[in-house]
Amino acid sequence: MDNSGMDDRALMQRCLTLARRALGRTAPNPLVGSVIVQAGTIVGEGFHPAAGQPHAEVFALREAGDRAHGATLYVNLEPCNHYGRTPPCSEAIVAAGVQRVVVGMVDPDPRVSGGGIARLRQAGIEVTVGIEEADCRKLNEAFVHRIVHQRPFGILKYAMTLDGKIATTTGHSAWVTGAAARAEVHQLRATCDAVIVGGNTVRRDNPLLTSRQATTPLRVVMSRSLDLPLDAQLWQTAIAPTLVFTEATAKPDVQKVLRQQGVEVIESTSLTPAAVMAHLYDRGCLSVLWECGGTLAARAIADGAIQKVLAFVAPKIIGGSTAPSPVSDLGFTTMTEALLLEQLQWRSIGSDLLIEGYLPIERLTLKDIRTN
Amino acid sequence: MDNSGMDDRALMQRCLTLARRALGRTAPNPLVGSVIVQAGTIVGEGFHPAAGQPHAEVFALREAGDRAHGATLYVNLEPCNHYGRTPPCSEAIVAAGVQRVVVGMVDPDPRVSGGGIARLRQAGIEVTVGIEEADCRKLNEAFVHRIVHQRPFGILKYAMTLDGKIATTTGHSAWVTGAAARAEVHQLRATCDAVIVGGNTVRRDNPLLTSRQATTPLRVVMSRSLDLPLDAQLWQTAIAPTLVFTEATAKPDVQKVLRQQGVEVIESTSLTPAAVMAHLYDRGCLSVLWECGGTLAARAIADGAIQKVLAFVAPKIIGGSTAPSPVSDLGFTTMTEALLLEQLQWRSIGSDLLIEGYLPIERLTLKDIRTN
Repeated sequence: MDNSGMDDRALMQRCLTLARRALGRTAPNPLVGSVIVQAGTIVGEGFHPAAGQPHAEVFALREAGDRAHGATLYVNLEPCNHYGRTPPCSEAIVAAGVQRVVVGMVDPDPRVSGGGIARLRQAGIEVTVGIEEADCRKLNEAFVHRIVHQRPFGILKYAMTLDGKIATTTGHSAWVTGAAARAEVHQLRATCDAVIVGGNTVRRDNPLLTSRQATTPLRVVMSRSLDLPLDAQLWQTAIAPTLVFTEATAKPDVQKVLRQQGVEVIESTSLTPAAVMAHLYDRGCLSVLWECGGTLAARAIADGAIQKVLAFVAPKIIGGSTAPSPVSDLGFTTMTEALLLEQLQWRSIGSDLLIEGYLPIERLTLKDIRTN
Repeated sequence: MDNSGMDDRALMQRCLTLARRALGRTAPNPLVGSVIVQAGTIVGEGFHPAAGQPHAEVFALREAGDRAHGATLYVNLEPCNHYGRTPPCSEAIVAAGVQRVVVGMVDPDPRVSGGGIARLRQAGIEVTVGIEEADCRKLNEAFVHRIVHQRPFGILKYAMTLDGKIATTTGHSAWVTGAAARAEVHQLRATCDAVIVGGNTVRRDNPLLTSRQATTPLRVVMSRSLDLPLDAQLWQTAIAPTLVFTEATAKPDVQKVLRQQGVEVIESTSLTPAAVMAHLYDRGCLSVLWECGGTLAARAIADGAIQKVLAFVAPKIIGGSTAPSPVSDLGFTTMTEALLLEQLQWRSIGSDLLIEGYLPIERLTLKDIRTN
């Protein structure tokens, strides 16, 4: 019985495992892993470690050497076919004499987008496309979104009680969730390129916003007033870089102090989530984590800056009619207008629950009714 | 190999299945099922259908007839040993010549509480206690609570969005959850003896509060002002009985109209959840479902009137800083004061999530800080 289908899937999963080793380090590039198999044996493996470094296929081909001749190469994303910071992988694969290439998904980058596959086929290589494609797309969802929409992929993360509160009536929020869920958030930050909070969160929670891991995201604060404490943990830029967006002419004295501590301050005439995401796109960010309060979260949703929602739900009741909820006004008056999350998933983390879903694409029309 | 342990468990589960046939009909009595096994064959089965009717063991013994002699009798709750509306089951079991009795749990009723088991043993019957005890206790959790605390078992049920809202900023709430979750609520009502809402819910949602099934709970409204619409669906008492609690001297004209429609109106000098639960205890209610808004829910929690929370969470975002949440003020200012739910369980119902848990017993101290 031919079990090559099974093998293809297992080897593609191996590519994804390799690719994940660079989580949080590749922006603006995708996460890519590659495996070369010769007569049933893996003879080469590689992954793309960071922008400016060689692609996954190059590492795999290097390790395989002459054994790549007549072999099958697996890669979760279509090999590139253009001269960027590195020469095209398609040519390297052809030159190595690879016989068959198994591709997880077509590269949405218009500079590639099928061109790599076409080049391989033109050279007489057998190409199979779409193995474990759903997993491949999920791993690179931020990369795909960035290419297609020319904006980073926005993730809204919040932690609330079972009665829908992210803090008490006095604003106290340490802690809503347990240690395991908080560790999961650190892990999540390590996979993102930037994390955003508003001035309220800095004033109230004084967060550090690091990942406690090797890779830590750019820490971003949106503050129109710049009415911020001068001793906030976020100004400790030796730990991780910090970027503050504010409106032009806001508190020049505070701006000066922040810059002296190594904080980058950007003045903008229009301080919106969309403008911040545009800037982070230009900086090459793939994924941006919004860890803000309800007011900024609502503005970010209305601005189309959020694609995915990660809601941690703690099994506790805190009460409070004025205690803050995760999302402030979106301008909806009837329940039928609610934004239905798609591709829903949930799992328990310690005693808490993590519910994940994607906002519908139609959210973009929200811009018309945006209240801010 | 002796597999009687396996048999005991399976047969006790059969008792629970039989007992469940009377869900919502037995108050103030427990749910009880019984099976009699003679030489590996079930020769008699029964369940307690309603207060005033014979107990489960009596039905099983009747069906078994002479075959009960030397048989094993299974029952999920200790057989009674006192003369109530029916003669004691312990005597009937002894008289039938049963050889062994397998009991799920001891009856917490002080009139029984081990006495039934002692009587059986005294008569030379072998008695095994505690088979599938956790399931037995769960099935009769309302009965046990009622006996131990002399109050009905209170269940708070609410449906909220993933951002913690039970309605929009305008109060619109049709519907938060999908059809499957709403059908589950009808099922839940059929198992409860009373369902309570406040005046706000009557004014805003005009609910029917029936189970759409054979058994439907007593519908209870708590309204201090009695400022209620005269054409509310709840006044249709041909469908199900309705009971309104109000303060003395509130709107005599409204009271008159309600009574003319068959609504029972009770005036109280102190209209609290605790007082209402005391009244419903006297009426024999086992379980009471609170389907109220956040204000009454908070008062009920603070009053110790809620033991279990059923939170339906819909995967949608509605937003709204003033949109209502499931629980209003409990007087907590720090997150560490939150009431941690115990014995947490969750499952999906359609596209929604149902999260269940029990309030800690210490909630009773909340009475001291009650704000209402």
